Amino acid sequence: MAAQLTKEELLAKAKKPAADAMELHPFYRGKVETMLKCCVRDFNDFAIWYTPGVAAPCKAIQADPELVFQHTNKGNVVAVISDGTRVLGLGDIGPKAGLPVMEGKALLYKYLGGVDGVAIMLDTKDPDKIIETVKLLQPGLGGVNLEDLSQPKCFRILDTLRATCEIPIWHDDQQGTATVTLAGLINALKVVRKKINEVKIAFIGCGAANVAISRLVFAAGATPALCCFVDTKGILHKGRTDIEQRKAEFVDKWKLCNISNAEGRTGGIAEAMKGADVCIALSQPGPDTIKKEWIAAMGKDAIVFACANPIPEIWPWEAKEAGAVVVATGRSDFPNQVNNSLGFPGIFRGTLDVRAKTITDEMCIAAANEMAKMAEEKGLSPDYIMPTMDDVDVFPREAAAVAMKAIEQGIALITNVTFEQEYAYAKKLITRARGMVQDAMATGYIALPKGSIAPKPSKVIVAAVAKATAKKPQAQKPSKQAKKTARRTMRSGKKGTR
Amino acid sequence: MAAQLTKEELLAKAKKPAADAMELHPFYRGKVETMLKCCVRDFNDFAIWYTPGVAAPCKAIQADPELVFQHTNKGNVVAVISDGTRVLGLGDIGPKAGLPVMEGKALLYKYLGGVDGVAIMLDTKDPDKIIETVKLLQPGLGGVNLEDLSQPKCFRILDTLRATCEIPIWHDDQQGTATVTLAGLINALKVVRKKINEVKIAFIGCGAANVAISRLVFAAGATPALCCFVDTKGILHKGRTDIEQRKAEFVDKWKLCNISNAEGRTGGIAEAMKGADVCIALSQPGPDTIKKEWIAAMGKDAIVFACANPIPEIWPWEAKEAGAVVVATGRSDFPNQVNNSLGFPGIFRGTLDVRAKTITDEMCIAAANEMAKMAEEKGLSPDYIMPTMDDVDVFPREAAAVAMKAIEQGIALITNVTFEQEYAYAKKLITRARGMVQDAMATGYIALPKGSIAPKPSKVIVAAVAKATAKKPQAQKPSKQAKKTARRTMRSGKKGTR
Repeated sequence: MAAQLTKEELLAKAKKPAADAMELHPFYRGKVETMLKCCVRDFNDFAIWYTPGVAAPCKAIQADPELVFQHTNKGNVVAVISDGTRVLGLGDIGPKAGLPVMEGKALLYKYLGGVDGVAIMLDTKDPDKIIETVKLLQPGLGGVNLEDLSQPKCFRILDTLRATCEIPIWHDDQQGTATVTLAGLINALKVVRKKINEVKIAFIGCGAANVAISRLVFAAGATPALCCFVDTKGILHKGRTDIEQRKAEFVDKWKLCNISNAEGRTGGIAEAMKGADVCIALSQPGPDTIKKEWIAAMGKDAIVFACANPIPEIWPWEAKEAGAVVVATGRSDFPNQVNNSLGFPGIFRGTLDVRAKTITDEMCIAAANEMAKMAEEKGLSPDYIMPTMDDVDVFPREAAAVAMKAIEQGIALITNVTFEQEYAYAKKLITRARGMVQDAMATGYIALPKGSIAPKPSKVIVAAVAKATAKKPQAQKPSKQAKKTARRTMRSGKKGTR
Repeated sequence: MAAQLTKEELLAKAKKPAADAMELHPFYRGKVETMLKCCVRDFNDFAIWYTPGVAAPCKAIQADPELVFQHTNKGNVVAVISDGTRVLGLGDIGPKAGLPVMEGKALLYKYLGGVDGVAIMLDTKDPDKIIETVKLLQPGLGGVNLEDLSQPKCFRILDTLRATCEIPIWHDDQQGTATVTLAGLINALKVVRKKINEVKIAFIGCGAANVAISRLVFAAGATPALCCFVDTKGILHKGRTDIEQRKAEFVDKWKLCNISNAEGRTGGIAEAMKGADVCIALSQPGPDTIKKEWIAAMGKDAIVFACANPIPEIWPWEAKEAGAVVVATGRSDFPNQVNNSLGFPGIFRGTLDVRAKTITDEMCIAAANEMAKMAEEKGLSPDYIMPTMDDVDVFPREAAAVAMKAIEQGIALITNVTFEQEYAYAKKLITRARGMVQDAMATGYIALPKGSIAPKPSKVIVAAVAKATAKKPQAQKPSKQAKKTARRTMRSGKKGTR
């Protein structure tokens, strides 16, 4: 635990990636590119991939639209769509300025989940236009990841699209954050030996993330009446007329006013946290949003999620000094990072692989349980409740758990697959994606910044190169002339290799 | 020349790619995928490509939107957008059924031009919705390739988007076909030693392609008054009241009624072709759309473009028997293929590289001239007026010619680049794209269909693998344990490589 660092030092530490980013973004000019997925043995192959041959798959899909999944990449494409109105903690910076984030997300989809992420930025803030555009884009997509949309419009956009689209729609700031937080909560409760249905939870902040987290946490067994929510105007309760008057817009918040806080508490964060077993804060960057004495007033063996970025609502060491047993944050330099990247790549992998129509809360809970189980297998402790991103197995395991739940719920089109099969398939795709990147760095197709050492080429390509360059037995060795001809034939596009 | 083949035999021959396509499309499930363009040395790099580091480039772009070209891949992305209403010769087959074609086009963009093509299918046929959607998609795109839109709406969609978008918009069925046809015409006229401003041209068919071809051919020097156009109702002339009554919709056609056919000819294809020096047919599939005797009635040393697919309006050997000297078709199995793939990859490469605001007719003519020049350098003949797709130089040369023209016209944002520099840059990108595909096949990342022989790994990766696996001099050789640790560090995501 970095207890010795000050706020200034930690902010300074956070500046290193920013400095690197300003140097390396222009070095690469983008994080993802288009790569061919099919062979080009020679130029005659274009008659297969394009006119005239391509007409045959087109006609087949026209006759049976389901065949689009056989003949195209649709089933592996997820569009990361944003209007740039709530990018990271930066607010409404617009669609061009949001592109580096969406390209980054596309990168994470590919590297962690083997999913072909495509960044799409929309030049409108109008929720109806966003809804309409996403609907129009469906034919070529396997799914949609909505990202960094401002609230409250993000709720209506997600709900409308989920109700009307034929492909799965995901809002990572809602469902993704909720899934990963739930995984952490499940394990944190194990560490302190409390039951989810008995704990009092204080939700600090009532934005898209906490609304979604609470829905998932309640679905996983927590008791709403025992919980409190705090927004910028205080604790939610039935008497919050400011919310009631806008209940058409703030549907979820008004619902929370009615189902939570059976005690009818009023006040602010301090009052909400009093006696609580768990505090889940996704509110204002700290470090003084939550005070030490408020933690001290929580119940025994308190659990604190302080997930504001870049500075948590309270420093983890302060929370611990005040009596918290388990502390999680959004930062990678503290233990227990609540990291969205642990969720969406595996969840979409499983969803796509069984062609689930949507991603239900139950599928999210299945992913959270699998994530929690993985960490548990390694041995839980107050400082280890979550797997980390470099745990390569987390993604195929989640994929398999999600796929099984979709099949169980009857929303998967592909049903003849077991957990083990889906795990193996997902692992293969993810391993391939990572291997391609490693080998592209090893061989120079991805250049490395000055001073960086290229990774070793993978066994796959070392073996392939060894085989291709090995001396053939004398009897079978083609003459130099024959080799030359063969190579020329390949290059000149004549059908030499088939 | 395949003079011995019958229509049935040729149709059968055209079925081979179709059969291969039905086998290989499901084998690959798509033609393009997302690939990382930047390094992932270890998991700490995600703090650069995603939060928190990514916030810095976001803020930089917010302050100066032009920087989006430095920090993202926007400048190399071209969306291939279609509604599937006029796919190949198949008509309105819908957006899902059109996806294999658009993925094929994305593949061609990458392989031939080093451009990141992304297939986008729109679930609407409404021209206003198509226009609006394309406009909304601009922030993340470097350009748009409209494809396979039905006419007449395609004209208005292209014109409106070109007038209102901040990125270049291209309709390949208009501008692309026109550019490649013009290149062929320029060389065909050289073969028969005729001047473009003096020739009589009969345009058979008056769809999107021929309307665009004629505009470019006129801009390149041909004399409209000497030319005739034929649509399904006959020759175009000032008295065509059927067109005049719908002139708001058929703007271009009505203009052609007024500027062409000074003689005031009436009748059909036969009458239009009488005495013509050139026939450019993009009409109904043949082989009897154009009759031998109509060719025989053309002027001396006639040039015939019979570009209907899959069967040309007249068999090339019949056209030659009737007296034509140069015959071009759309098929790869006859000489002189008029192939769109010769155009768009190089044209967009050059356009993107100098950040041209649009693609002007002059830029298309520059590309056509460069293409024509390339074939001329190899030696023109009646059976060789066009370069072929496997002529790797055609694309960077076009790119350079297009870039220079954009700079000359004052529509390029990047102006400090010479022909040679752009040629070298484009060649590098294209060589890299092809190399990546070759090596992915050689190393197994792209699987090969049964019976196909993998190409040799490129020199690039053979050298990289040799270097990485070479035995180090004894003094510097790390111990086995050190090596193991280094490798584990890399995999586990700790910062071992920086």
